[in-house]
Amino acid sequence: MSHNSFGQMFRFTTWGESHGPALGVVIDGCPSGLRIDAETIQRDLDRRKPGQSKYTTQRREADEVKILSGVFEDDRTDGLRTTGTPISLMIENTDQRSKDYGDIRDKYRPGHADFTYHQKYGIRDYRGGGRSSARETAARVAAGAVAKLVIPDVQIRASLVQVGPHKIDYSRFDWDEVDNNPFFCADPVAAKEWATYLDGIRKEGSSVGAVIEVVAENVPVGLGAPVYGKLDQDLASAMMSINAVKAVEIGAGFEAAELTGVTNADEMRAGQEQPYFLSNHAGGILGGISNGDPVVVRFAVKPTSSILVPRQTVTEKNQNADIITKGRHDPCVGIRAVPVGESMMALVLADHLLRHRAQTGREGGIGHE
Amino acid sequence: MSHNSFGQMFRFTTWGESHGPALGVVIDGCPSGLRIDAETIQRDLDRRKPGQSKYTTQRREADEVKILSGVFEDDRTDGLRTTGTPISLMIENTDQRSKDYGDIRDKYRPGHADFTYHQKYGIRDYRGGGRSSARETAARVAAGAVAKLVIPDVQIRASLVQVGPHKIDYSRFDWDEVDNNPFFCADPVAAKEWATYLDGIRKEGSSVGAVIEVVAENVPVGLGAPVYGKLDQDLASAMMSINAVKAVEIGAGFEAAELTGVTNADEMRAGQEQPYFLSNHAGGILGGISNGDPVVVRFAVKPTSSILVPRQTVTEKNQNADIITKGRHDPCVGIRAVPVGESMMALVLADHLLRHRAQTGREGGIGHE
Amino acid sequence: MSHNSFGQMFRFTTWGESHGPALGVVIDGCPSGLRIDAETIQRDLDRRKPGQSKYTTQRREADEVKILSGVFEDDRTDGLRTTGTPISLMIENTDQRSKDYGDIRDKYRPGHADFTYHQKYGIRDYRGGGRSSARETAARVAAGAVAKLVIPDVQIRASLVQVGPHKIDYSRFDWDEVDNNPFFCADPVAAKEWATYLDGIRKEGSSVGAVIEVVAENVPVGLGAPVYGKLDQDLASAMMSINAVKAVEIGAGFEAAELTGVTNADEMRAGQEQPYFLSNHAGGILGGISNGDPVVVRFAVKPTSSILVPRQTVTEKNQNADIITKGRHDPCVGIRAVPVGESMMALVLADHLLRHRAQTGREGGIGHE
Amino acid sequence: MSHNSFGQMFRFTTWGESHGPALGVVIDGCPSGLRIDAETIQRDLDRRKPGQSKYTTQRREADEVKILSGVFEDDRTDGLRTTGTPISLMIENTDQRSKDYGDIRDKYRPGHADFTYHQKYGIRDYRGGGRSSARETAARVAAGAVAKLVIPDVQIRASLVQVGPHKIDYSRFDWDEVDNNPFFCADPVAAKEWATYLDGIRKEGSSVGAVIEVVAENVPVGLGAPVYGKLDQDLASAMMSINAVKAVEIGAGFEAAELTGVTNADEMRAGQEQPYFLSNHAGGILGGISNGDPVVVRFAVKPTSSILVPRQTVTEKNQNADIITKGRHDPCVGIRAVPVGESMMALVLADHLLRHRAQTGREGGIGHE
Repeated sequence: MSHNSFGQMFRFTTWGESHGPALGVVIDGCPSGLRIDAETIQRDLDRRKPGQSKYTTQRREADEVKILSGVFEDDRTDGLRTTGTPISLMIENTDQRSKDYGDIRDKYRPGHADFTYHQKYGIRDYRGGGRSSARETAARVAAGAVAKLVIPDVQIRASLVQVGPHKIDYSRFDWDEVDNNPFFCADPVAAKEWATYLDGIRKEGSSVGAVIEVVAENVPVGLGAPVYGKLDQDLASAMMSINAVKAVEIGAGFEAAELTGVTNADEMRAGQEQPYFLSNHAGGILGGISNGDPVVVRFAVKPTSSILVPRQTVTEKNQNADIITKGRHDPCVGIRAVPVGESMMALVLADHLLRHRAQTGREGGIGHE
Repeated sequence: MSHNSFGQMFRFTTWGESHGPALGVVIDGCPSGLRIDAETIQRDLDRRKPGQSKYTTQRREADEVKILSGVFEDDRTDGLRTTGTPISLMIENTDQRSKDYGDIRDKYRPGHADFTYHQKYGIRDYRGGGRSSARETAARVAAGAVAKLVIPDVQIRASLVQVGPHKIDYSRFDWDEVDNNPFFCADPVAAKEWATYLDGIRKEGSSVGAVIEVVAENVPVGLGAPVYGKLDQDLASAMMSINAVKAVEIGAGFEAAELTGVTNADEMRAGQEQPYFLSNHAGGILGGISNGDPVVVRFAVKPTSSILVPRQTVTEKNQNADIITKGRHDPCVGIRAVPVGESMMALVLADHLLRHRAQTGREGGIGHE
Repeated sequence: MSHNSFGQMFRFTTWGESHGPALGVVIDGCPSGLRIDAETIQRDLDRRKPGQSKYTTQRREADEVKILSGVFEDDRTDGLRTTGTPISLMIENTDQRSKDYGDIRDKYRPGHADFTYHQKYGIRDYRGGGRSSARETAARVAAGAVAKLVIPDVQIRASLVQVGPHKIDYSRFDWDEVDNNPFFCADPVAAKEWATYLDGIRKEGSSVGAVIEVVAENVPVGLGAPVYGKLDQDLASAMMSINAVKAVEIGAGFEAAELTGVTNADEMRAGQEQPYFLSNHAGGILGGISNGDPVVVRFAVKPTSSILVPRQTVTEKNQNADIITKGRHDPCVGIRAVPVGESMMALVLADHLLRHRAQTGREGGIGHE
Repeated sequence: MSHNSFGQMFRFTTWGESHGPALGVVIDGCPSGLRIDAETIQRDLDRRKPGQSKYTTQRREADEVKILSGVFEDDRTDGLRTTGTPISLMIENTDQRSKDYGDIRDKYRPGHADFTYHQKYGIRDYRGGGRSSARETAARVAAGAVAKLVIPDVQIRASLVQVGPHKIDYSRFDWDEVDNNPFFCADPVAAKEWATYLDGIRKEGSSVGAVIEVVAENVPVGLGAPVYGKLDQDLASAMMSINAVKAVEIGAGFEAAELTGVTNADEMRAGQEQPYFLSNHAGGILGGISNGDPVVVRFAVKPTSSILVPRQTVTEKNQNADIITKGRHDPCVGIRAVPVGESMMALVLADHLLRHRAQTGREGGIGHE
């Protein structure tokens, strides 16, 4: 049991606070012999990095990753390789400006973990939210980059599909558009509209929520296990562990409640080598196990809690007060959650791939395979 | 790591197939000295039991629970008590009618785990779905009844809040109505409308999805832990592990995406002894830790996959076929998911209460508590 | 985390008390497709069964195992097969004679868990020791029989090598002798001497300790992992978890302390396909990982604590008293620990074989393999 | 499941190789509010540090620990305090001299993990043993220093009690002597004899094994749990996880095999408030649970495998060769295992103390407590 670890066979443990000297992740269970380099990990980190547009926090962090262990290179290895031992990755914090947070030392920010951390632990690192800061997701993204090495054939992509009340039009959905706008949005028209909308939100000193869709293609059949090792269960857990996430759905999700058994059924047809499905309401998972279709997950992120509009709150001493959260924050923290969602998908799939290997040795064979 | 266990400190492991001799659960970590009896567990099981109305499967199971271990009674204990050792509960299967399922031996039922189990394991117990049957949830409900002994002050209730496209009207919400209709519905007007609607669905040989809301009141502040031990994360995992669940949300859930930071903020005011919240968009959880407000979870259940309308599928040998799933099924499996949702809430809270105890010994004290 | 489970990928959970209705085990993670039958499991249980000679307890238990889940058979499976779902095994208690234990209700038996259970849990099932009874080992032996299906090429054998101060002569060691005497002893001469010695001990109403040696041959190279997943670490944990065990050693064990680096070195020579070792002080494990040589474990069992000689103790109310433990006990509980040791070896190796599979997928290959 | 983590509630994960940039440990589950400082941790690290006498390796490492997360200080905390979030500790490697190890790139050193790592992972960091180096124990000692904060009332001490064939005389045992000689030996006379003996061993270019005894006093009654959460089981696992350890025993240990039930019984007498024991063959543990008496563990360390005497081995290409392991090694690696043994004891006890808290909430009470 660990409060700061995730995964079973591909297991990672994150550490670090927003305003401490560094944050990092230890990955345990990564197979050996995989080619790895800091540049690949850095590329994923750079996508999540703050300060890249006016729609994300202006905090500027280099977010430079260092590989401290678990890799080796000599003249025979053809580059740096994983060795099967724990991979320790560290990112030093460089732009902390602790003074920005001094005035919230005694007050609980609504929507933040201030109150609950203080109640539970009797002490809290209030500088930038400490452990509850979205900065922790940098460690996930670094781990996710390693996870992708374990599942090289799986393609994972994500798009912002809703900002506030504004949803994308799926008829315009184009993965190639995701990197053409500051929102990781697959609908270029929606992206333009969101720009205007978010400018307004930002100027009001407010913030807004969002929905992210993550899709994994080419997932092998068989990942996941009944009954409490379901792939969708672990995906739900993974996405809900991201800061500010309040909802998760797989495939048809909440819409499935409205469907009948007739319309919801993903009918099957015989294929060349394998049967295939005529629809994917299931989101690629049946009975908790991947069925070969794209794994589709959506999750909702609440609006950033740190806003410039004054809100009512209380002090640590249980006295009424108002609060404005200054500092540098995302008007829509959901934007930066897009690469984080991809990383969590990679981490869950890598873990289940390794688990699957262990489960399915069938010595002695069996008749009707 | 275990595919069939859930929880960390209050940990349960279920076993059994739909058409095997029995199913059961082993609970490990239940504190000692709690008064327990088979009747209390039976009462919860009876709420979930099939065959209670025409809206649930006509399979008739006594679902009689036996306590096989972990309890003790003598003239000093004032009744049966838990001893701190594993509590083994068993329910024998009595009404199995295996013949009903013989014709689906070779075909995959759309929406079921048939295809994925077969692909993963190379063998499947097709009788009633085997391990993937909703019968497994009886074991959860039995375990949940024990979990409730650990959190006697917490009140957990649930209501069906949507059947197909028909939602309840929250202005009529009344917990006292839940046991007055066959749908566990807190809105008596909606319940009547659903009766008519579901009669139609049943006669069509179809089925329909549903949404369940579970609310836990009087939850102590402090349950849950950053970052991968979040209470909402475990609730999402718990609910998604229930058969046919496709979506989970906490508090405002997906609606949070549409809100601004100003409207979503749960403002605080100073109370007599503790501060209190003016709203509960958070669903009782901040930063993964309970804040003392009601914990609110909703989850969506897809329509029962076993329907009498023929659907296209393939055989195990990858040949096209049509299939009708005879047998005795629920037109809306979401109904029986209501008590299951309550049980999962109890199991998660009991686990986190025990974990909380371990985490919060603060020897040596600290200044600003 | 579970106090009553062992293993990671091949994980079992035992439950049950000495004088409850039954005891059992749930095995989670057993691969699918393995041929299994109750007879094979029964055969192992019968070796451990009490009442087989005057040197073991006269309690007579049928110890008949029932397979309740996790298996399936139809006309295509060529017998009963595992399905990959949890295998639940149950053994009903038949010969309990609870009255024998009535007079120890209020007194702590020296060397038993009575005092510590009572202190920890505030309640104890004193009938036959409850959960602390050696009867729990029947559940392990049943699980071990299933574990052996996972490692069919590994040969596991054990011998009693010391009873009280009397050790075997290794020059007479012959595995074929183990089943020719009531002590599972590979030295037939020692077995005869022990018979006389143990008759004396039994007549005195006393008991005596023992040492067991377990050897696994044909173990694949590579099982185990640095640093806290060492094979020897798990073997130590496994053997120490058996009732009354006070010491465990691997290979040269405590004798290694007396050796120099020169004599202790297991030198290597080039073999036809693989290198081989000229000695096995390591007991088949280097750096926590199996090296292909026989895995050799020895463990010491203390004398049975239940004896007929009066000993000083206290009551639950902290008053001085004397105690004689009547009932039917083993004069040397180490004898029946022999098959238990074999089972624990099988359980650890099966678990590590499955773990090994997950760890060693090396996609992308590597140069110097 | 994690191969590089230990503990359940107080759980630590180590990472790092002998010749990588750094090594470290992440501690998860440490309660909040404990006063902590780098100096306290450093003090324990300095005891284990190499290069302190001619009897340990001449490698000179500053072993300077940095606290990277999990702590906080402001004007209200009275010094640095733990916050309940993961504590990340890092020690940079400074004196690596990789060239020393270049010639063992292609050969397996007998007694080392070279062969098994290579077989398992297909790649190995041969520089100083990489992950299998005893340098990993620095991370344990750092973690152990934090563990001691959780159990401030428990006193843990250890002594080397045997070097090669030379045992201490327990009649001269004096804890105060431990820090007066370079062997952490409680018998000053033995320490002098060992000095002469080890000088000889060192000059021969050989090495020798040792036995360490660790004693924890003032351990609360009730730590540990039946059946696979036994305190002695976890202690066995902990000690066996230390590099080069081949044997572990609790209390009377292997000697218990020679005793009768009459002599082995730890009789009890009524005390003022609690009963007490007249002897401690049990080593402070009954039925897997601490009984309040000193917890006594001994473990054997094999002789350092790296010696200057040529030994036969093979190359990676399975060709015969001789090998001398140059570099800077301990003639008796058991010496530096003394503080490591203390640390492992602290880590196991801290973990079980936290587990105990979770297990023993007895809401509703019970009559005969």
